[in-house]
Amino acid sequence: MIHCKCFTIILSLCCLFGFAQQEDSVMIKKIADEILSNGRAYEDLRLLCKTVGGRLAGSPQMYKAESWGQKTLQNAGADKVWLQQCQVPRWTRGGKDEAHISDQSKKQSLDILSLGNSNGTGLKGIMAPVIVINSFEELEQRKSEVPGKIVFYNYKFNPLFVKTFHSYSDAVKYRGAGASRAAKYGAVAALIRSMTHAADNNPHTGAMNYNDSFPKIPAAAVGLKDSDMLIDILAKNKTAQVFIKTNARMIGDTTGHNVIGEIRGSEFPDEIITIGGHLDSWDTAEGAHDDGAGCVQSIEVLRVFKGIGYKPKRTIRIVLFANEENGLRGGTKYAEEAKAKNEKHYFALESDAGGFTPRGFGFNLAADRLQRIKQWLPLFVPYGVYEFNAGGGGADIAPLSSTLGTPVAGLQPDSQRYFDIHHARSDVFEAVNKRELELGAVNMAALIYMVDKYGL
Amino acid sequence: MIHCKCFTIILSLCCLFGFAQQEDSVMIKKIADEILSNGRAYEDLRLLCKTVGGRLAGSPQMYKAESWGQKTLQNAGADKVWLQQCQVPRWTRGGKDEAHISDQSKKQSLDILSLGNSNGTGLKGIMAPVIVINSFEELEQRKSEVPGKIVFYNYKFNPLFVKTFHSYSDAVKYRGAGASRAAKYGAVAALIRSMTHAADNNPHTGAMNYNDSFPKIPAAAVGLKDSDMLIDILAKNKTAQVFIKTNARMIGDTTGHNVIGEIRGSEFPDEIITIGGHLDSWDTAEGAHDDGAGCVQSIEVLRVFKGIGYKPKRTIRIVLFANEENGLRGGTKYAEEAKAKNEKHYFALESDAGGFTPRGFGFNLAADRLQRIKQWLPLFVPYGVYEFNAGGGGADIAPLSSTLGTPVAGLQPDSQRYFDIHHARSDVFEAVNKRELELGAVNMAALIYMVDKYGL
Repeated sequence: MIHCKCFTIILSLCCLFGFAQQEDSVMIKKIADEILSNGRAYEDLRLLCKTVGGRLAGSPQMYKAESWGQKTLQNAGADKVWLQQCQVPRWTRGGKDEAHISDQSKKQSLDILSLGNSNGTGLKGIMAPVIVINSFEELEQRKSEVPGKIVFYNYKFNPLFVKTFHSYSDAVKYRGAGASRAAKYGAVAALIRSMTHAADNNPHTGAMNYNDSFPKIPAAAVGLKDSDMLIDILAKNKTAQVFIKTNARMIGDTTGHNVIGEIRGSEFPDEIITIGGHLDSWDTAEGAHDDGAGCVQSIEVLRVFKGIGYKPKRTIRIVLFANEENGLRGGTKYAEEAKAKNEKHYFALESDAGGFTPRGFGFNLAADRLQRIKQWLPLFVPYGVYEFNAGGGGADIAPLSSTLGTPVAGLQPDSQRYFDIHHARSDVFEAVNKRELELGAVNMAALIYMVDKYGL
Repeated sequence: MIHCKCFTIILSLCCLFGFAQQEDSVMIKKIADEILSNGRAYEDLRLLCKTVGGRLAGSPQMYKAESWGQKTLQNAGADKVWLQQCQVPRWTRGGKDEAHISDQSKKQSLDILSLGNSNGTGLKGIMAPVIVINSFEELEQRKSEVPGKIVFYNYKFNPLFVKTFHSYSDAVKYRGAGASRAAKYGAVAALIRSMTHAADNNPHTGAMNYNDSFPKIPAAAVGLKDSDMLIDILAKNKTAQVFIKTNARMIGDTTGHNVIGEIRGSEFPDEIITIGGHLDSWDTAEGAHDDGAGCVQSIEVLRVFKGIGYKPKRTIRIVLFANEENGLRGGTKYAEEAKAKNEKHYFALESDAGGFTPRGFGFNLAADRLQRIKQWLPLFVPYGVYEFNAGGGGADIAPLSSTLGTPVAGLQPDSQRYFDIHHARSDVFEAVNKRELELGAVNMAALIYMVDKYGL
């Protein structure tokens, strides 16, 4: 139901802008009904989460996930399924991360997770005093106090941004660059307050990068409760020390794959529309929202087209990208090969913001073209999508955009719960709601149907 | 951020329609910042759920909840807090509900929950064959097969409605009237397939009503997995019987209370704006979403006005209603007393659709007035509310609307997860997300601010 006056205006304008309101509304209802009654995304996700689990690039689970992807794309009805080879980095946690606070005679354990790409402490671990640093500005001011210490970055995830991805963009530099910036001033390790609003104590890992100019010190994330406890203890006893023992290391590249399935276009088979998510995930959970959800939603777009007998004019290609989390080698390779083969990439859509109830799409698309397709919005409102925003896409399809100039878009689900589970042990199948996942797929399929039918 | 062209149009029109876009946007941001950084709703809810728990009308927990409500309203800064007495029915489950399927020599246990207001089976329980009935139409056609049997209503919660409250409206008649309609044809008990999309096996209770013309047979809900198992077993063995033992009964009315707190209006103290939720809940869970969430969000509206120093022109009255679930005596009493005292009720807002991420408001308001306030929508979009819909309100404020003609509205959160937990054991504090709960309160406070400032 569309109640807003503005949508009524748009509805009346639609006939002027060259799309068949009534016919498209019927087709999108058909897509929705098929997904909401016979959808396979949720069961596909259960299998990925429960039979493969965490699947970091280069791990044995990566290969199991690739097999799952091939089989699932075949079952969904792809005309053709193949693997696209790419080299992926291999980072391993190397066992359980350990930490505790040593406060006079007491030992208080700290729950930590090594950051992806970081180095371990060595077998003996590191025991050192801790300096609490709230921002990079403070680090600069207090650099003389840093040598020999563990820097604990206590930058808080800002609750005032309504869209939580803004809080993430705001805070993620401490995870990415914090270790090297601390090492520059002589720190022996870095800990970060996790980037989350979650009320629990799970640490949230994620990729970091070393600056080769400085010592590559160990780095790990701490959950919110333990972060607050650490600060409390240090406030009372400045001589308290922290012990960390982590076993992480890079062990050289290996071969991984993008898993690809497609339906060949009936009219313009050379024009490719890519829809995807990334198949890899962090090792410590099931990668259910990040990004199992995006993978199964993408596959569901192909399946629903087959299921309702819609034959796309353009080639619809589903890509389960390798190694988004700590290298982006899959997305990079996909764009490289597209360029080398002179493929025509008409549009690409990614779902990598969680399997939550959909709210909108973000587009990296010329302003006039975005304005034009906003006329489609009334078709999406009944399925929960109200916004076509400027700006958006996905990490894996960004290389297509930058290399070939392909217009790209990303599904924008409700973001409130995403950073509760992002890169944490709590990113498990049970945190995904079947209908929210399906409604994401409904809107993705509806968008692809409209783009395929009318062009961008 | 507002990207949609239609909102831009509306934004430009706003100045023509008599509200101060910029000033209101700043005030609403102030409300949001206060709630998102210092909000108390989540902690209030934790206390209600974990120290009181389930709180059915007339139970000892009802009185504990009333005390919690008084204290929480006082802490929030109400000028005045009082109890409004009303008689409430007392239904008790009377212990654990028991059931099993007796299939030849095997006994397969069934997880059931007696429906609210229903009678128990007596100490011996009931063992009888089962007839599966998919609709009332089928019941009429097969009425000759019903005598001496347990009727199992297998009406499925329709997945095709995107807004799940439509599925509920569609299915709830089997819970409400199913037992008496089956008893009319000689059934000895009624079971219903739970009204839910949930993938788990929790039964979902809820109120039923007997028709005094027919025997008052026991009635209970069965979760989806056990419903399917029962159907499977009966398909293979038509002689399989079901045993039910329930202990429920009505034990006469007792005294309960609406808990009320208010801020007196600075300009029009006699014009009352009521904001509320219901304090009672089913006995088998914590009533976190239904409707602890609505209670704490309503209290938060009062608290944030005090917190940011906004002095409403009209009297803002927070009401935690008694006995919504199985009698509506609180809401009825509130309207009766309002009428008797000739109070002027300007507007009422209820939150009773779960503490999930907000999407819109539904209004029971003259069409031209609704059209006028839709011009406010761009102020709400940054906080996730896109729709002011025609039709809406809440059970507890419906008597105000029908008795005094008061315009009413209801918060409309995203509904995808609601019936997963509705009236089931899974409606616990942990199922509520802090920020989603808070964003509901932000939008409620913003709406009340606008109604108070500009009128309806």
